[in-house]
Amino acid sequence: MKYTIFGESHGPAIGVVLSGVPAGLALDLEEVQRELDRRAPGKSQLSTARKEADEVHVLSGLFEGKTTGTPLAMVIQNSDQHSNDYEDLRYTPRPSHGDYAGFMASGGCLDYRGGGHFSGRLTAPLVAAGAVAKQVLARRGIWVGAHISSIYGISDASFEEPEELKAVAGKEFPVLDDEKGKEMQEAIREAKNDQDSVGGAIECAVVGLPAGLGAPDFGCNVEGIFSQYLFAVPAVKGVDFGAGVAFAYMRGTEANDPFEVRDGKVVTRTNHAGGVNGGITNGMPVIFEVTMRPTPSISLPQETVDLRTGEEVEIEIKGRHDPCIVHRAVPVIEAAAALAACQVLGV
Amino acid sequence: MKYTIFGESHGPAIGVVLSGVPAGLALDLEEVQRELDRRAPGKSQLSTARKEADEVHVLSGLFEGKTTGTPLAMVIQNSDQHSNDYEDLRYTPRPSHGDYAGFMASGGCLDYRGGGHFSGRLTAPLVAAGAVAKQVLARRGIWVGAHISSIYGISDASFEEPEELKAVAGKEFPVLDDEKGKEMQEAIREAKNDQDSVGGAIECAVVGLPAGLGAPDFGCNVEGIFSQYLFAVPAVKGVDFGAGVAFAYMRGTEANDPFEVRDGKVVTRTNHAGGVNGGITNGMPVIFEVTMRPTPSISLPQETVDLRTGEEVEIEIKGRHDPCIVHRAVPVIEAAAALAACQVLGV
Amino acid sequence: MKYTIFGESHGPAIGVVLSGVPAGLALDLEEVQRELDRRAPGKSQLSTARKEADEVHVLSGLFEGKTTGTPLAMVIQNSDQHSNDYEDLRYTPRPSHGDYAGFMASGGCLDYRGGGHFSGRLTAPLVAAGAVAKQVLARRGIWVGAHISSIYGISDASFEEPEELKAVAGKEFPVLDDEKGKEMQEAIREAKNDQDSVGGAIECAVVGLPAGLGAPDFGCNVEGIFSQYLFAVPAVKGVDFGAGVAFAYMRGTEANDPFEVRDGKVVTRTNHAGGVNGGITNGMPVIFEVTMRPTPSISLPQETVDLRTGEEVEIEIKGRHDPCIVHRAVPVIEAAAALAACQVLGV
Amino acid sequence: MKYTIFGESHGPAIGVVLSGVPAGLALDLEEVQRELDRRAPGKSQLSTARKEADEVHVLSGLFEGKTTGTPLAMVIQNSDQHSNDYEDLRYTPRPSHGDYAGFMASGGCLDYRGGGHFSGRLTAPLVAAGAVAKQVLARRGIWVGAHISSIYGISDASFEEPEELKAVAGKEFPVLDDEKGKEMQEAIREAKNDQDSVGGAIECAVVGLPAGLGAPDFGCNVEGIFSQYLFAVPAVKGVDFGAGVAFAYMRGTEANDPFEVRDGKVVTRTNHAGGVNGGITNGMPVIFEVTMRPTPSISLPQETVDLRTGEEVEIEIKGRHDPCIVHRAVPVIEAAAALAACQVLGV
Repeated sequence: MKYTIFGESHGPAIGVVLSGVPAGLALDLEEVQRELDRRAPGKSQLSTARKEADEVHVLSGLFEGKTTGTPLAMVIQNSDQHSNDYEDLRYTPRPSHGDYAGFMASGGCLDYRGGGHFSGRLTAPLVAAGAVAKQVLARRGIWVGAHISSIYGISDASFEEPEELKAVAGKEFPVLDDEKGKEMQEAIREAKNDQDSVGGAIECAVVGLPAGLGAPDFGCNVEGIFSQYLFAVPAVKGVDFGAGVAFAYMRGTEANDPFEVRDGKVVTRTNHAGGVNGGITNGMPVIFEVTMRPTPSISLPQETVDLRTGEEVEIEIKGRHDPCIVHRAVPVIEAAAALAACQVLGV
Repeated sequence: MKYTIFGESHGPAIGVVLSGVPAGLALDLEEVQRELDRRAPGKSQLSTARKEADEVHVLSGLFEGKTTGTPLAMVIQNSDQHSNDYEDLRYTPRPSHGDYAGFMASGGCLDYRGGGHFSGRLTAPLVAAGAVAKQVLARRGIWVGAHISSIYGISDASFEEPEELKAVAGKEFPVLDDEKGKEMQEAIREAKNDQDSVGGAIECAVVGLPAGLGAPDFGCNVEGIFSQYLFAVPAVKGVDFGAGVAFAYMRGTEANDPFEVRDGKVVTRTNHAGGVNGGITNGMPVIFEVTMRPTPSISLPQETVDLRTGEEVEIEIKGRHDPCIVHRAVPVIEAAAALAACQVLGV
Repeated sequence: MKYTIFGESHGPAIGVVLSGVPAGLALDLEEVQRELDRRAPGKSQLSTARKEADEVHVLSGLFEGKTTGTPLAMVIQNSDQHSNDYEDLRYTPRPSHGDYAGFMASGGCLDYRGGGHFSGRLTAPLVAAGAVAKQVLARRGIWVGAHISSIYGISDASFEEPEELKAVAGKEFPVLDDEKGKEMQEAIREAKNDQDSVGGAIECAVVGLPAGLGAPDFGCNVEGIFSQYLFAVPAVKGVDFGAGVAFAYMRGTEANDPFEVRDGKVVTRTNHAGGVNGGITNGMPVIFEVTMRPTPSISLPQETVDLRTGEEVEIEIKGRHDPCIVHRAVPVIEAAAALAACQVLGV
Repeated sequence: MKYTIFGESHGPAIGVVLSGVPAGLALDLEEVQRELDRRAPGKSQLSTARKEADEVHVLSGLFEGKTTGTPLAMVIQNSDQHSNDYEDLRYTPRPSHGDYAGFMASGGCLDYRGGGHFSGRLTAPLVAAGAVAKQVLARRGIWVGAHISSIYGISDASFEEPEELKAVAGKEFPVLDDEKGKEMQEAIREAKNDQDSVGGAIECAVVGLPAGLGAPDFGCNVEGIFSQYLFAVPAVKGVDFGAGVAFAYMRGTEANDPFEVRDGKVVTRTNHAGGVNGGITNGMPVIFEVTMRPTPSISLPQETVDLRTGEEVEIEIKGRHDPCIVHRAVPVIEAAAALAACQVLGV
């Protein structure tokens, strides 16, 4: 299963083509839509004011409710665009956005409006593709769950068992501990009031992958496969498996996961390794955390360079932005993880 | 440029085939050997007692001292093998090693001796391949440097400019601050005395990549490309770019890198993004940190399962192991980064 | 540059996503449309009665008339569908069509209407993608031309210089010798009257590729690259370079192409090799012939098996079909060749 | 399963690395060696005088007689080299060899001795890799057979059933009709006496592939996959499936393969399609013919250009060459087909 996402924030439409979808899957399009709704901005004041219906139209690969095995094309129309907000920014790249890098990559030919192809809006087709992947995985008894693990240093509770993540999926603000969630929302609101933004992290579990998938080698390594999908999500700057960065502070005795037998099955007592040893699944849940940078779009004045004149200038970003994208990114990370899990499975 | 590493720890030889090497490169084989010597165990007591010459033999792709553009095959003979050390472990997988995952992947057919294909010894051909990549990069004015950023919680100094890393390459223990290095070595020695091991982290910089390489999309994303190479290094469990996990604690005002003009060139004042915006290089050094887990081979008794009987048993690992592999991994991470940089460049 | 074609003959739309298009190309959409018009059925009685406007809509990757370097999505609406014609054929696969193979591949879940994803209609997005590739090539002084080399055993004239092919592109019936073209058309008409169909061959030249592209190795071999694109065109059953099958009747003295100097450039006097030696371009035009099978859709009664009952049955195919697709396939082969040439160039 | 072949004709060794070999295959190395012996020059005067033992050494991926699933590296030493034969040809490319194209690709850095990486000698590791693939296929009841279909216009008999090909594999001169074989050998001898060479064709069948593998799309198309492997064999200039070039002379009524039921299984009465419809296997044997050009190495004087001076010169090729490589290429084509079949199967 391979996916190609296309579209620009202010173009006519965005979408995705999924190749290699197994034939005969009774695709639940309402479920695909529900996943898209999870990443919608919501009614709170914590997200962008841009409102899009984000209704998915399937152009191909689906017949009489089942996938045909031929490429599945899904398209979402764009509608609520305020392109004028961006005219001023055409030659004055916003700090830490893709503007300057994209300008250099395209020789100045990028669609700069609303972030163009770099826009967080492009995560909508990713969620749609991931929703298909989730349904493929569900047939094999595999599921994906995630929660906000922290925002601006405020940490959510940890889970004992990944099953606890199932309750999070239905929440407007996807945390395990709602009290911590309120603190996080307060931090977002404060940042917004200060015309600023905040970063955070998301922890994700893929449950049900059998032991023995992958290889230590380049291109087949399970952690390498997952990370390639995860870094393709805008704003992700770090991917850490199992104990993650804490491994750097540990001894082998703390880090090692002893094997034991549970219900007649070989398992590990702990899961510091995050379900992967030597680049291969060991049958435990694959668990990882991604770090998401603060949204670079802040409305405070910032310093940049006018690419026409080479002069340093100050800009103020208008437009409608998210003071934090971590909470909206939870279904996006799940989607990327589901697509990665399909590759690991060889689907 | 693509590489395929082959070999087992106790097989006749290990090696690598590099395809797509640009023709006409005057390959400095002594330099390749020097890189290999950097990862050799050294004379200290901090590393494995296994001693290998690790001499590279080029079988193809080199003619009259220059690369021909055809596949470059490099082979290293194995010699100092103590296979009997491993006979006991054949059906009792060592915790947090690739043994069990590999057993499941191969239906029990893996070469279990000395970790087989999972052995850290397989990083020798990776270093050889990376040494070729470094020479390809050097022609384009690009270089790679790294240092141990921490071991068991003891942190090295930070660098102001990546150029400071150049002095680290020649050191037996590759840190910026040798005093910190001594503390780290002491921590390793203590772990060794306790029959234990320690983890750590390595920070790496790739300097000289032009702005505009890569794309936000899956498969072309610069961070995704690097991470795929880095996670193929044994023991790497996390890859974090620029400010890395600290982004989760930051506001946009702290995290954003303002653009400015220096020497007539657009640069960023800070480099929290680690040289990548929107999946594309921005012309600043690409900087990332990898977390390396403690060596799972510890000689203390550990709990595991006998895969023949399904019974829980206790094992003690004999053999010659590294109480810490972070210091030996510095040239390995550089090698993986150099190969990744070649892919980013389209070489 | 990679392409993914999606769509079914009787679905809402067909299309293509092109990734890796170089940024900054002033894309001539009218030229893209003209290429599509070349494969339209035309007013003659030689082609299907299905009439489609085949108007291309660009959804992404184009801004202010120039490519942005991000994925270019092009969509063509379906309109003139007679799905009822196919209901009878759902479980009785048409001989030599993809019906049975597709049924087995999809577990019976394919969209069977009008050939579904196997329909010749899917060559429309291929022509659109190829039209973009041709414009990319034109910037580099490279062009692609083709002609019908034979239909039902009636051969077109040969060309002395590939330049003669330029005049063919504008013809309703793309041959060098219009008299031969009339004979071919007569053969098609006769087959049609007999409720039958005819096969043929197309010869194609790619002119302007520099010497030194490609490699002898699997995956990089120029002939291998071209053939992968060409066999993805429905009905292509053979791909032969240069002298092609005649090599089997030749001696080395006849087959070898002596080198000589023309206008200060090393060229070959003859071009039996079709521009490729050892899997690498030699600077001469890349020339090949593809064999196209007779359209399997014939309205005479045919024997098949009812897949529900396992009984042998006779079918008569209704619907609107081409008694020959060779003349319409000329721009399709050019499109596939243009995309292949881009890969050979590393674009 | 992916393969990378390395080596030069006069370098220290040639070899191949096979990745993705299924674990647990009891590899019959003697069988691998027998396949290599099939392509050895033999005792007749019909082939090169260069004699090589071509003994395969396995460096990795095999343990206790079984494949481990890790990369399988096989190496063959070079020994009987007469490099001086080639010194004169360094800057005067042999017509229709890879010399000039390779010179341009490598900026003049190729190993020119004995054809370097372009040498037919490089088909030895391909045969070794194919021999492994054949054993993988045999486990699934799939086998590959081939015969010389023609040399210099002299055609072998046709087979009624692919099973007849099994007797051919053991023959010194692999034809169905030994009388025709003698005529062919006579034609080769005559060409040799005339210091010339001859071309021919090989027909190959892959028997046992189930229906439903592949897809019509680029990259998944069965004919496209096979052709990519086949064109990577030196001297192959055409690949034609089933009726092949004869399709251009046929009507649909002749070309179509009616479905029928045999032994409770859906089959086609004829197999003009060569086992592939719409890019997907239909369960019938996959049958194709490859055209092989006459060996470009002939000892008659030939015209070329001195690349140092740009002057036209005459050369005479010394060295030990095959006046025909078709008979030696039969196991090579089988090997390429076996590797292609593995990819089609997703092994």
